[in-house]
Amino acid sequence: MPELRKDPIVGRWVIIATDRAKRPVAPKIEPVPSGSFCPFCEGNEIHTPHEILAYRERNTKPDEKGWRVRVVPNKFPALQIEGGLDKRGDGIYDHMNGIGAHEVILECPFHETSISNLTEENIREILWVYRDRLIDLKKDPRLVYGMVFKNVGTAAGASLEHSHSQLIVTPIVPINVWEEMTGSLEFFNYRGRCIYCDMIHQELTTAKRIVLDSPSFVSFCPYASRFPFETWILPKNHNSHYENIQKNEVEELGTVLKTILLKLEKALDKPAYNYIIHTSPLDTPMLPHYHWHIEIIPRLTRVAGFEWGTGFYINPVPPEQAAQFLHDTEVDLSVKVKR
Amino acid sequence: MPELRKDPIVGRWVIIATDRAKRPVAPKIEPVPSGSFCPFCEGNEIHTPHEILAYRERNTKPDEKGWRVRVVPNKFPALQIEGGLDKRGDGIYDHMNGIGAHEVILECPFHETSISNLTEENIREILWVYRDRLIDLKKDPRLVYGMVFKNVGTAAGASLEHSHSQLIVTPIVPINVWEEMTGSLEFFNYRGRCIYCDMIHQELTTAKRIVLDSPSFVSFCPYASRFPFETWILPKNHNSHYENIQKNEVEELGTVLKTILLKLEKALDKPAYNYIIHTSPLDTPMLPHYHWHIEIIPRLTRVAGFEWGTGFYINPVPPEQAAQFLHDTEVDLSVKVKR
Repeated sequence: MPELRKDPIVGRWVIIATDRAKRPVAPKIEPVPSGSFCPFCEGNEIHTPHEILAYRERNTKPDEKGWRVRVVPNKFPALQIEGGLDKRGDGIYDHMNGIGAHEVILECPFHETSISNLTEENIREILWVYRDRLIDLKKDPRLVYGMVFKNVGTAAGASLEHSHSQLIVTPIVPINVWEEMTGSLEFFNYRGRCIYCDMIHQELTTAKRIVLDSPSFVSFCPYASRFPFETWILPKNHNSHYENIQKNEVEELGTVLKTILLKLEKALDKPAYNYIIHTSPLDTPMLPHYHWHIEIIPRLTRVAGFEWGTGFYINPVPPEQAAQFLHDTEVDLSVKVKR
Repeated sequence: MPELRKDPIVGRWVIIATDRAKRPVAPKIEPVPSGSFCPFCEGNEIHTPHEILAYRERNTKPDEKGWRVRVVPNKFPALQIEGGLDKRGDGIYDHMNGIGAHEVILECPFHETSISNLTEENIREILWVYRDRLIDLKKDPRLVYGMVFKNVGTAAGASLEHSHSQLIVTPIVPINVWEEMTGSLEFFNYRGRCIYCDMIHQELTTAKRIVLDSPSFVSFCPYASRFPFETWILPKNHNSHYENIQKNEVEELGTVLKTILLKLEKALDKPAYNYIIHTSPLDTPMLPHYHWHIEIIPRLTRVAGFEWGTGFYINPVPPEQAAQFLHDTEVDLSVKVKR
């Protein structure tokens, strides 16, 4: 059973794997293999755990061909779904069982490595899957936070190249989320407004860091970007929970996400990147102070000792320049994917 | 002038470089060059900015041969020393000038790439230099935090292989430090004790995660280790500020640091790593709740989307196993360095 341990000083939780080896072997960093066997491709369903959800053609069966987007448990899960939390202390330390969910979203049945090469309709189905899984996991009272994220490229932590994202659901609110929730609540208590709504207003007004402005979404490089070309996508209408996204927003976000990722890939020559959906804890009602959004982080620089020690980032590319460059990068949304 | 910007939600500061290029070029990750010209070697003093401090042989002059440990300004500083802070707002955002110091400590005059291969006496002089620089920078009322750190290997952010460390001094308390200070103060207010002192006591008592136990220092893999083989070194006597280290502690720490790094290098086959001295802000008096220490982080795994989004780390090696393995790794402290 994986174990959750809390840092007693700052309150940060870590997941400690407990499959014990006689001699601890340090995990190696290896490049994502290309061209070899892919367990995520259609026809290889037997090589993944049983599917949790799939959008598939009529008259096709689970764990067989015929799916368009498919969700399976992670074969090497960071957290496991069975069991009780069993919260307890160990002297000054806090501990609980590593209960949670770790799922993989296979984004297309054919071997495509970039979500940006998929059709807008395909991307919309991926966005629906994210929502459907969050809604389903909300039913489990042990689980309080669902984090949807994507790792692309070795430098971003990916270990398979077939286009996929992941969902990790944890029994506690992660510290970074807690800090965002607390910071935005403080602002709300003081000013009576959502800080993200204010930020959207200021970004649209000053228009110095806008990458894309669409009817329901805005994308900009944030004022205090930690990383070169860090790019956020926010819905213009206030909404604290991703899973409450409207259908017309999903339609539009499919296009917006594809456009932004194509821009980043063209401007930065297919960088490794992560994207992360920041949303409210599963067990909260609609919140007036928090605003779900997507943060996209190209992995161009390495985080060194100073950043680890301080949480203080050095960004060599001003976000105004990055945004202008991305804004001006023209992309073609037509799809050239085989299939 | 570099610029400091504050994230309005979580209060994290970032340093934005402002040397503007027409087209923003993403920095490339390149391996540390080996065998080429080294500006940090003795005889090449002209290739660094003027030295700030050096421990050198009698009758030798600044910026000439004859030094043992030498401190120079970083040629590409993240912060600059001249100017006023000029704190101001920009709508909902906060901003100040990037005032501070960014120094490089050249740890030996000959071309050695690992501090662990230096003599204990040499390492002690490096530890004294850290102290002397912090004491000196304390005089500047604009500067409030001094972070000493070391990057070894490309994966840890190093760009030159000659053994060196860095010192960045900032005009604000970095967020991670703030969180440590706040967390340990809360514990102190509740229990009346230093949480680090309690942790040392519990670690020595349970003896499950001890790497090394010496008269004045203890080294262990922390209970909630974020990374495989994360290792801390703490002074047993309570002391909030590194710069108040006692002479006998410096003597001992020279040996302890060398031993721990040799163990890590042997056990993990010369990994990239960072070490960071966590200490109190420069402008604080002796604090009963904070305890300076060194955190050593081997860079074996890549931080992926989940960690970025949550601040929640997945560590595949339990610290008990890592500590046992490091504890049992035998090393030879004799020096085989030419010179």
